[in-house]
Amino acid sequence: MRTIERVRSHVAEINDLLCAVNLLTWDARTQMPPQGAAARGKQLATLSKVARERLLSRELVGALQEARAESASAEEADELDQLADALELLQRLPDGLVEALAEHRSVAQAAWERARADDDMAAFTPALEHMLELQQRLAQAIGYREHPYDALVGLYEPGMTAARLQDLFGALRGGILPLLEGIRASDVVADRRFLQRDYPEGAQRDAALHFARLIGYDLGRGRLDVSAHPFEISFTRDDVRITTRFRRDYLPMSLFGTLHEAGHALYEQGVDPAYVRTVFTTDVPGLYAVAGSSYGTHESQSRLWENLVGRSRPFWRAHFGALRDHFAEQLADVDAEAFYRAVNHVEPSLIRVEADEVTYNLHIMLRVEIEMALLDGSLSVRDLPEAWNAGVEATLGLEVPDDARGCLQDIHWSTGLFGSFPTYTIGNVMSAQWLEAARAQEPAITPALERGDTAPLRAWLQENVYRHGRRYSPDALLTRATGRGLAPEPYLNYLDGKYRELYDL
Amino acid sequence: MRTIERVRSHVAEINDLLCAVNLLTWDARTQMPPQGAAARGKQLATLSKVARERLLSRELVGALQEARAESASAEEADELDQLADALELLQRLPDGLVEALAEHRSVAQAAWERARADDDMAAFTPALEHMLELQQRLAQAIGYREHPYDALVGLYEPGMTAARLQDLFGALRGGILPLLEGIRASDVVADRRFLQRDYPEGAQRDAALHFARLIGYDLGRGRLDVSAHPFEISFTRDDVRITTRFRRDYLPMSLFGTLHEAGHALYEQGVDPAYVRTVFTTDVPGLYAVAGSSYGTHESQSRLWENLVGRSRPFWRAHFGALRDHFAEQLADVDAEAFYRAVNHVEPSLIRVEADEVTYNLHIMLRVEIEMALLDGSLSVRDLPEAWNAGVEATLGLEVPDDARGCLQDIHWSTGLFGSFPTYTIGNVMSAQWLEAARAQEPAITPALERGDTAPLRAWLQENVYRHGRRYSPDALLTRATGRGLAPEPYLNYLDGKYRELYDL
Repeated sequence: MRTIERVRSHVAEINDLLCAVNLLTWDARTQMPPQGAAARGKQLATLSKVARERLLSRELVGALQEARAESASAEEADELDQLADALELLQRLPDGLVEALAEHRSVAQAAWERARADDDMAAFTPALEHMLELQQRLAQAIGYREHPYDALVGLYEPGMTAARLQDLFGALRGGILPLLEGIRASDVVADRRFLQRDYPEGAQRDAALHFARLIGYDLGRGRLDVSAHPFEISFTRDDVRITTRFRRDYLPMSLFGTLHEAGHALYEQGVDPAYVRTVFTTDVPGLYAVAGSSYGTHESQSRLWENLVGRSRPFWRAHFGALRDHFAEQLADVDAEAFYRAVNHVEPSLIRVEADEVTYNLHIMLRVEIEMALLDGSLSVRDLPEAWNAGVEATLGLEVPDDARGCLQDIHWSTGLFGSFPTYTIGNVMSAQWLEAARAQEPAITPALERGDTAPLRAWLQENVYRHGRRYSPDALLTRATGRGLAPEPYLNYLDGKYRELYDL
Repeated sequence: MRTIERVRSHVAEINDLLCAVNLLTWDARTQMPPQGAAARGKQLATLSKVARERLLSRELVGALQEARAESASAEEADELDQLADALELLQRLPDGLVEALAEHRSVAQAAWERARADDDMAAFTPALEHMLELQQRLAQAIGYREHPYDALVGLYEPGMTAARLQDLFGALRGGILPLLEGIRASDVVADRRFLQRDYPEGAQRDAALHFARLIGYDLGRGRLDVSAHPFEISFTRDDVRITTRFRRDYLPMSLFGTLHEAGHALYEQGVDPAYVRTVFTTDVPGLYAVAGSSYGTHESQSRLWENLVGRSRPFWRAHFGALRDHFAEQLADVDAEAFYRAVNHVEPSLIRVEADEVTYNLHIMLRVEIEMALLDGSLSVRDLPEAWNAGVEATLGLEVPDDARGCLQDIHWSTGLFGSFPTYTIGNVMSAQWLEAARAQEPAITPALERGDTAPLRAWLQENVYRHGRRYSPDALLTRATGRGLAPEPYLNYLDGKYRELYDL
C-alpha cells in the first residue's frame, strides 16, 4: 500500500466516526425519547474524543509526514497539505482546554435556558464570563496577528479576520441603512394576513417536500423530519437529512425553512463521490463531518435557495399554482404577486431569526461587534445588555423591552460559538456573488429562472461549488468561480434592485 | 484514581461506542434513506473495529491485570474476572478471521436474498459453503472439548453445549410430539376468520402501544417504529427502542409482535442503573451493548410476555375490552374466549416465524441438528435440502414444496449466526421456569395474573432477572432465582396444561 493510502484509510475511519457523531446528534434532536439525553451526551463526548485521539495519533501523523516526503500528484499534494494544516491547528488546542470547553458548554447552556425563560441576565452572567475566559484562552492557543477574534472566526471561516469583517460591515451599512430608511418612509404595505390562516401540518409537510424536491433535493439520499430548531446534517453525500418546524398559523415558517435547509443539503449531496470519507469532507479542527468549504459558504447556499431564488418573483409566478394545490381554500383569494409581496415584507424587529432580508444583517453586525469587544476586553459582560440595547436602538430604531428579547435571544454564546455569527452575513453576501457570476457565465440561467426552472443554476453551482467539497478555502473557491474574493457589491445591488422596486423608491 | 476506575473508564467508552453501533443499526433499519446503506456499512465496520481495538489495547489489558492484583471487594472481583474472561475469548478470534467473516457476511446475505427470491438453492450453495468453512475456523479459534458446535453456541448462550442441547431436545420431543398427535386428532377448531378483517394501521399502532405500556414498557425511555423484521435494541437503559410491522389484514402480527419486543425491552430498561456503561451491560466478545445475560435469557422474557402472559386466558378476559375499544367494529361479534382460542390455534406449518407455541420448537430443533451436522462435516451443503425436507416430513408431517419455504427461509446462516437458533427454544423453556418460580415464591402473582394485573410478576422479574444485567451467566441466574438450571419440565407442563384443555384431550 502506498503511504498516502495509509493516510487516507486513517482519515476515512475518522470520517466514519464523525458521521456517527452526526447521526447521534440528528437522532437526539428528532427521535430520541426524553430520558435518553444524559447517556447520549456521554456517547457523543466519547466519539468526539476517539476521533480527536485518532487524528492526533502517532500512526496518522507519522504516515502523513512520510507521505508528504514521497512524490505525489498536485492534487495529492493539496490533499496532504490540507490535512497537515488542519492537524497543525488541531494540535494547538490543548486537551485540558478542549475538555473544559466541552464541560462548561452544557453548564452555560443550561444557565442560558433558565436565564432566557426568566428574563434574568444576572443568572447567565457568571457562566458567560467563564465561557468568555475559555474563548480567550482558545484564541491564545490558536494564535492570531491582530485581534483575538481572528483566531475564532477562522475556525468557521478560514481566512476571515476582524479587520476584514469591519471593512465588509462598513460597506454593508453604507448600502443597507439608506435603503431601510427609504423603506420605512414608504407607504407601500403588503397584505400578509393570509399567511396566518389555518395551514394543517400534513399539507405543509407535503408542500415543503414538493419545493425541496423542486430545487433538486434528492429524497433517495435524504429525509425531512421535525425539530425545535431546523437544521441540515449529513452522514456522507448519500444520506443528507433536513428538518423543519411547523406553525399551523404561519405558512412561511416551514416553507422557507425547508428551502433553506434543502439549500444546505444540495451542497452536501453534490460533493464529488471521490471525496467521500476524505479530508475534503472532514472539518478536522472542528471534528465535524461536512462537505461545505466553510460555514459561510454553506450558508451562501441556504440563503441563495431560500431568498435569492425562493423569495423571487419569477419563482412564485411559475410555482404559486403548485403551492395553491396544497392549500386550495387558504390561498383561494391570493395570487403570485400578492404572495411574493407578502413574503418580502420589510420591518425592523427584535428577533434575529424572524428578520427580513434587509434588516437581517444589522442583527448580525451588532452581535459580531459585541463579541469582538467582549473578547478584547473593551466590553464587560456586565455592560453587555446596555451595549446591546443601544445597538438595537441605533441601527433598528427599536427599544428592547427585556433581555429575553435582547442579548439573551441566541443560543450561540452559551454553547461557545464565538466567531460563528459573521458566517450568516458572509453567506448572504456570497450568495449574490454566486448568482451574479452564474448568470454572467451561463446565459441560459437567467431565462430559465424567469420561467421558474432552477436546473441550469443548480448545474452551475454543482460544477463551481458543490462538487469541490472542502478542497478549496472559501476565498479560493470564490475567486476560482467568480474572479474575485468576498465583495459586498453584488449583494447590495441585489437588495437595492429588489426592494427599491417593491417599495416604489 | 484507583486502577479499577481506569478499567471502568475504558469499558464505559467502549460501551458508548457499541451503543453508537446500536443506534446506527436501528437507524439503518427504521429511518435511513435507501441510498445510505453503503456508507452506513462502512461506519458500522469502523465503529466495531475501534471498539475491538480498544478492548484489546495494551492500556485496558494492562490496567485490568493491575486491578486484579489489587485488593477488591467480591463484587469488584466478579466484575474484573468477567471482563478478563470475556477479553480472553475475544483475543482468541484472529483479526484476519473477524475481517473475513464481516466481509463474507454481506456477500452471503446478498446471495441468500437472491436465492430465496428465485427459489434457487444452487445460487446460495457456494456462499454457504464458504460461510461454513469460516464458522469451522471460528470454532477452532475459540476452542471446544467435544463438538465444534459447543464453541459457537457458547457465543450466544455461555455454558451451552451440543450434548446438553441433545438431552434437552430429547425431553422436549418426548413431550411435544404426543401432544401434537393429540391435537391433530382432535376435532376442536377455533374460528380465526375475524383476525383477518380490516385493521387500519393507526389503530393497530395505538393498540400495540397500549399493550406495551400495560405490561410496563416505559415510553419516556423508548419508542415504537416500523421495520421489515421487528427487533428491540438499546443504547443504555434510558433509551430502549422496539419495532413492529403491520399487516392490515392480520391483527396478531403487530399485537403479539409488540408484546414480544416489549418483553425484550423490559429486560433492558430494568437493569440496575449502576451497571450502565459497565461490563455488566456489554457483550464483550459479541461487540454488542446489551443488558441481557444471554440470547436465551433475553428470549425468555420476550416469550414470557408474548405467550405465557400475552396468550393466556386471564389476560384477555381482563383486557379484551381495551382491545375492542380500538376495533369496535371489527371485534363487535367476538368475545374474550373466542379471541383467546383464535390466537392459540395449533397447526403444523412450513414457516418458523409463523409457527404456534406447540410446533415452534420442532422448527428450531430441526435447524439446530442440521447446523451441528454441517459443522462436524456429517452433512454437506449439497445434501442440506434433502435433510431439511426429510426432517420437516418426520416431525411436522408436511411436504416442503420448494427451498424458499424450506431451508432458504431463515436469514441466520447467511449472516453467520451459526449457533444462535437454540436460544429461541432455550428462551421458551426458561420462560416457563421463571413463571413457575415466580408463582411459587410470591403468592400474590397468581391471583393478580388471574385479574389481568401483571405488575407483581414484573416486580419479581425485575428483582430476579432484569436488574442483574449480565452480572450472572444464564445458568447462575436461573439457579439463583429458581433453585436449578435449565429444565424442560415446567415448559412441558405449561404446554400440556394449556393445550390439553384447549383441545379437549
